[in-house]
Amino acid sequence: MRYPEDSKAVMTDLVLPSETNPLNNLFGGELLARMDRAASIAARRHSRRIVVTASVNHVAFNKAIPLGSVVTVEAKVSRAFKTSLEIVIDVWIEDRESGRRTKANDAIYTFVAVDDLGNPVPVPKIEPQTDLEKERFEGALRRKQLSLVLAGKMNPKDATELKAIFE
Amino acid sequence: MRYPEDSKAVMTDLVLPSETNPLNNLFGGELLARMDRAASIAARRHSRRIVVTASVNHVAFNKAIPLGSVVTVEAKVSRAFKTSLEIVIDVWIEDRESGRRTKANDAIYTFVAVDDLGNPVPVPKIEPQTDLEKERFEGALRRKQLSLVLAGKMNPKDATELKAIFE
Amino acid sequence: MRYPEDSKAVMTDLVLPSETNPLNNLFGGELLARMDRAASIAARRHSRRIVVTASVNHVAFNKAIPLGSVVTVEAKVSRAFKTSLEIVIDVWIEDRESGRRTKANDAIYTFVAVDDLGNPVPVPKIEPQTDLEKERFEGALRRKQLSLVLAGKMNPKDATELKAIFE
Amino acid sequence: MRYPEDSKAVMTDLVLPSETNPLNNLFGGELLARMDRAASIAARRHSRRIVVTASVNHVAFNKAIPLGSVVTVEAKVSRAFKTSLEIVIDVWIEDRESGRRTKANDAIYTFVAVDDLGNPVPVPKIEPQTDLEKERFEGALRRKQLSLVLAGKMNPKDATELKAIFE
Amino acid sequence: MRYPEDSKAVMTDLVLPSETNPLNNLFGGELLARMDRAASIAARRHSRRIVVTASVNHVAFNKAIPLGSVVTVEAKVSRAFKTSLEIVIDVWIEDRESGRRTKANDAIYTFVAVDDLGNPVPVPKIEPQTDLEKERFEGALRRKQLSLVLAGKMNPKDATELKAIFE
Amino acid sequence: MRYPEDSKAVMTDLVLPSETNPLNNLFGGELLARMDRAASIAARRHSRRIVVTASVNHVAFNKAIPLGSVVTVEAKVSRAFKTSLEIVIDVWIEDRESGRRTKANDAIYTFVAVDDLGNPVPVPKIEPQTDLEKERFEGALRRKQLSLVLAGKMNPKDATELKAIFE
Repeated sequence: MRYPEDSKAVMTDLVLPSETNPLNNLFGGELLARMDRAASIAARRHSRRIVVTASVNHVAFNKAIPLGSVVTVEAKVSRAFKTSLEIVIDVWIEDRESGRRTKANDAIYTFVAVDDLGNPVPVPKIEPQTDLEKERFEGALRRKQLSLVLAGKMNPKDATELKAIFE
Repeated sequence: MRYPEDSKAVMTDLVLPSETNPLNNLFGGELLARMDRAASIAARRHSRRIVVTASVNHVAFNKAIPLGSVVTVEAKVSRAFKTSLEIVIDVWIEDRESGRRTKANDAIYTFVAVDDLGNPVPVPKIEPQTDLEKERFEGALRRKQLSLVLAGKMNPKDATELKAIFE
Repeated sequence: MRYPEDSKAVMTDLVLPSETNPLNNLFGGELLARMDRAASIAARRHSRRIVVTASVNHVAFNKAIPLGSVVTVEAKVSRAFKTSLEIVIDVWIEDRESGRRTKANDAIYTFVAVDDLGNPVPVPKIEPQTDLEKERFEGALRRKQLSLVLAGKMNPKDATELKAIFE
Repeated sequence: MRYPEDSKAVMTDLVLPSETNPLNNLFGGELLARMDRAASIAARRHSRRIVVTASVNHVAFNKAIPLGSVVTVEAKVSRAFKTSLEIVIDVWIEDRESGRRTKANDAIYTFVAVDDLGNPVPVPKIEPQTDLEKERFEGALRRKQLSLVLAGKMNPKDATELKAIFE
Repeated sequence: MRYPEDSKAVMTDLVLPSETNPLNNLFGGELLARMDRAASIAARRHSRRIVVTASVNHVAFNKAIPLGSVVTVEAKVSRAFKTSLEIVIDVWIEDRESGRRTKANDAIYTFVAVDDLGNPVPVPKIEPQTDLEKERFEGALRRKQLSLVLAGKMNPKDATELKAIFE
Repeated sequence: MRYPEDSKAVMTDLVLPSETNPLNNLFGGELLARMDRAASIAARRHSRRIVVTASVNHVAFNKAIPLGSVVTVEAKVSRAFKTSLEIVIDVWIEDRESGRRTKANDAIYTFVAVDDLGNPVPVPKIEPQTDLEKERFEGALRRKQLSLVLAGKMNPKDATELKAIFE
């Protein structure tokens, strides 16, 4: 059994000129790739296994991230299932002059722990500590059902956790 | 008014050694970045505007893509809303010896068309032609509601299209 | 026996800021590298073998390709020799506002099919279908002779196909 | 006046295949580049200015960092001079199976804060808090003298702080 | 008036893992890009102008260049025309254990000198010194005619220098 | 026994847009990485062994290197110890219009020669020829002592060569 905090991976880096779109903001695709690397480190820290990306849940790009920004990607395991892990990622940017930190967006990725041949292996349980960690732990089951429904692997009628939010 | 086929962007490329994980498969993050570039080209072709990534819907990585693979990313606008576009992306890999093509995964991205200052601008309507295009066009509204619900911008009770699938 | 169309590889991608020269146009060297990757995919599709670049024929850069352009590189096998393949590559750019597509340049590369140890292996024959494919198939022999003459491996007097064009 | 902790920049990332030498370990040059980026972020956070690398002090590569490692680069301002900042960087790697963290190496960089034209501008003072911060703050003056002596800008006889350690 | 030697650009670098094909040799496309950069430096040194790639003449990849090799790309202006320059590029690899240097391949690129708006501008004359420089200077005219013929800008019958080698 | 000139590695290349900081000058980190690659080639040429970076001595960035510059990194072995080599690196930039070459900075790196398992192996002696080579050869011992003192592996009192300069 482990805690979300143990898995926390912090990746602070610059936005370089080669990573920007015609408006001089960070490309969505480059941010998706950074979040994937940070999330894989969190998943690896929790599982101590090789991990591979299984799915990306809804990601909203709420705030443009301009060239030259300092971007912090923070990834933390939110829930451990049998062989898979849900990772929540928060992205922050900071203003150079005021030093103020702003949330740019967040995302949820799922990873699977595998052995050297790529076969799924069990992962340790997780115990959320803070209120935010508990809330994210709870939400993870709904998201897993949503994921299965969207992939056509679960009948929407059986997704009891998920159905509840529409009632 | 335009057709989905007019926006279709095909990006065939190799999996290079610098893009692989410890199992020698393409990194999830690198695939997310390629899909983002292909989708942005489809969005640009339809709108003839600068476009920026607004959100990524659920993406499942069903199939590992080994080093040296030829990967084809195909992106096509599935539905045009007021200023935003939903893009469906299909990813294919092909076996070198048999030449057989296999679906590796698919994904849905949303882009917003903007002017030079980054303000959203209207996009042309789209008219789906094939059965698959029509099916994806229909699903787009449900996905948009899901997106708004997940972002806390719509009350789940009001997401009528979405609720229907759970009933 | 295969058709040129079966080998066609389409690589549509953006011109990123890291790939431009002081005039803000795509570097010649970067375009040469993209054409090489697209051509190698076409060669691989026809031969179903590992392929390596053998030579690059005359390439003219007729049109500058500005930063932010959408560039489409299309590669197709034009002729199969014993173990080598000639690939013709066409490069297109498109105007964002009008959607108009313009030919930026074309190039010819030669690849050799090899086994795992790098030894040349025979490739299937090819049968050109369209008029353009037939014309390129015919020209391939002259270009092969030119290539051998330039490399000092054929006496100019013996290059009968080639000599003909000067008479 | 600010504290060292306020400037702390943490950059955790993977060692990718494209960054390794023939022994499959991280290239020295790639680590130097990552340390430079992390240090520049710490310098920027303290000064809230554009910062440029002024010098790199002695860096020892004590431990090889293998392909696939998770590497954490931690940078923190150790002392502020008039327009320059000394940054201490610690590099850690962690074992995937045991989760144990090991120090791989450390380094010292100096940055100068500049205005938009590249002219040096004053930076805020710093007040070390922990014992390690105080020790590094003290050492910074000796290192600055050493730097000036090595650059031929100070007579070794005048480097009083530095001379003391040889007596 | 300048000498070929004045323009000579030497680019020695390693073959990194991210630049190799499935046989673990340097990708043709990557070598084409390195040669383009080296040639552009030679062209710039001779003309002292912004230069852009105009064409690539026949390039033969005679020798595979394995991962980890030290590769030296040497570029030198061979002839100056009115606004364009022919550059000859020689590529060498060296054996680590014996230190022996081997020619891997050579190539010929043409650059045009331009002003800030991209318009062609005249370049200084060149005077070949060594026998090899003289031979390459002579050959350049034939290659220019070949280039014009291949581009359909000169009637083969008028290419007197070129015709001569077939008679 | 070998000469410094035999190991000399010259790496001339452009400063590309993806390698620049917010002032449009070459990133310190990128220059450190280029110097590391050039130095490793010089070390390899002298030792004919696999070499790994052991340490970087004081490096001062005296001169900003603007986007589009032609940068020449020259690395040469200055002294051979038992299994390690000191490499001196000089960096030059040149003005496009006047062709004038200016020294931008210099640096000193130390490499260790190793076998395939990463164990240190002896390297050949070196014999400096020119005055500058002799001066750098002499200085290398002082720098080695400084390195050992800074790493806490030598008592400053025993660093006789080094002490001398402060007396």
